[in-house]
Amino acid sequence: MNLPAAVKVVEVGPRDGLQNESEGVPLKTKIALIDRLSATGLPVIEAGSFVSPRWVPQMADSAEVLASIRRAPEVSYPVLTPNLKGLERARQAGARDVAVFSAASESFSARNTNCSIEESLERAAEVAAAAQSFGMRVRGYVSCVLGCPYEGEIDSRDVIRVAERLYRVGCHEVSLGDTIGVGTPVAARALVERVAESVPVERLAVHFHDTYGQALANILACLEQGISVVDSAVAGLGGCPYARGATGNVATEDVLYMLHGCGVETGVDLDLLVDAGHFISRALGRPAASRVSSARAGARSS
Amino acid sequence: MNLPAAVKVVEVGPRDGLQNESEGVPLKTKIALIDRLSATGLPVIEAGSFVSPRWVPQMADSAEVLASIRRAPEVSYPVLTPNLKGLERARQAGARDVAVFSAASESFSARNTNCSIEESLERAAEVAAAAQSFGMRVRGYVSCVLGCPYEGEIDSRDVIRVAERLYRVGCHEVSLGDTIGVGTPVAARALVERVAESVPVERLAVHFHDTYGQALANILACLEQGISVVDSAVAGLGGCPYARGATGNVATEDVLYMLHGCGVETGVDLDLLVDAGHFISRALGRPAASRVSSARAGARSS
Repeated sequence: MNLPAAVKVVEVGPRDGLQNESEGVPLKTKIALIDRLSATGLPVIEAGSFVSPRWVPQMADSAEVLASIRRAPEVSYPVLTPNLKGLERARQAGARDVAVFSAASESFSARNTNCSIEESLERAAEVAAAAQSFGMRVRGYVSCVLGCPYEGEIDSRDVIRVAERLYRVGCHEVSLGDTIGVGTPVAARALVERVAESVPVERLAVHFHDTYGQALANILACLEQGISVVDSAVAGLGGCPYARGATGNVATEDVLYMLHGCGVETGVDLDLLVDAGHFISRALGRPAASRVSSARAGARSS
Repeated sequence: MNLPAAVKVVEVGPRDGLQNESEGVPLKTKIALIDRLSATGLPVIEAGSFVSPRWVPQMADSAEVLASIRRAPEVSYPVLTPNLKGLERARQAGARDVAVFSAASESFSARNTNCSIEESLERAAEVAAAAQSFGMRVRGYVSCVLGCPYEGEIDSRDVIRVAERLYRVGCHEVSLGDTIGVGTPVAARALVERVAESVPVERLAVHFHDTYGQALANILACLEQGISVVDSAVAGLGGCPYARGATGNVATEDVLYMLHGCGVETGVDLDLLVDAGHFISRALGRPAASRVSSARAGARSS
């Protein structure tokens, strides 16, 4: 199989995961989680979000998080910055990496960010320009690349258009998100192939949710297409296993197991990562949404 | 991607799944499950096992199962027959398809079937010869093809040797089982490539357990290597999600979602299959170990 020798795993649990916790998570727990993740060898840990606390109260303490974590020198800690105000708050909090976002679905953009795709791209361009002027690195996210909860199928030309714009305004990396987890391998791989005609494949990341159990197969198919950056969340954070239609991110544990099994290097210690997953799962009071985590826990206690 | 146009899905839930239920499952429930599965379009439904009831009491009623299900004319209902005595009981019960088994691990063979690999192959040959003389079709299983709970790594030459023997003694199909679910895509695909040098790839099936979440990715990799027969279990039967180190079969629902999404035909109605999974999960008193099933249930109730 034609897989990359190494993959950069972008851990999104502390942000994309924890922002979905309706109960909120104590500041102390977030800090402890990120510190544990920093010790695993992960190169990138998404640490928070500077959106309005009115919209996402779960992330209201992101400045305190950035101030309190023990930053490992070789790890980057991007935070989400939807607008200039968020960017300014992120800058004051000492962020060096930020992320902007748009969507490939007009309905999703309207319902989730209250603006058109074009408006979200203009805002992203504005934030990206300002961030770069501050010497920050910018990552771009595209939502709903393989399906939309409101529109169903998404035209890959819309994905290409949005990804290309984010790349052109200065995003060093564009992450293609299957937000509702409906994608399957052939479609995922074909999408990467098409987007890579406009954005260099080494600048693309894939971001799968495991709603339909397809995430690892999709990742494998995309790796075969030249992808070498994969987003994932420790313990499959981002969806509650007991909630209706659980929609968690693919678990970092399961991604690492596959990659390491395939001889693909990540630099991450799977045992430490599993431990970090158990830590946050205990804090949330539910089992990790990771098969590897369950299997390891079973092996230990039997 | 180079995938087959069609895949034959072999449903193993009523046997490989339910034989692991420590509580046992009422005869009526087994019959109702198989009848529901028969209506989905599945071509093969493993219906029971004629092993000694002393060893596997869960399967003691396989003759009653065969006598009571409504057999769809185009569906085959293989049963496991470990020896001539089991074969005779299966024949009397009206079985037309049987299955024999061996393992690629000497320790696993010794502990699970109390004989050496060579002895198990001799027994399989004996059963296969007798079955063929009765006009029955014989399937072969090889356990532990990508790892053994006692020996760890397994030499692919041992897998090849056992698979080839089963094929030579008349098995129309040889199923390669990753019994403990430790395999990853590169190894799975390489194994298929090697075994296919001795057994025609169209005579090989793959049988993955989802212990480490790798099953769909492994299946995808094997399909790319020419495999077109996949074993799976409705609702991921074969492991308890609350038990230590859950080791269920890959869920048929999740396999179908991937295959259909990739444009691979199976002839199976996913909705009916999901319903059958909900039926048996309700009967067992726990949620289906299938992401597709959870996502569908969530979508319905929200």
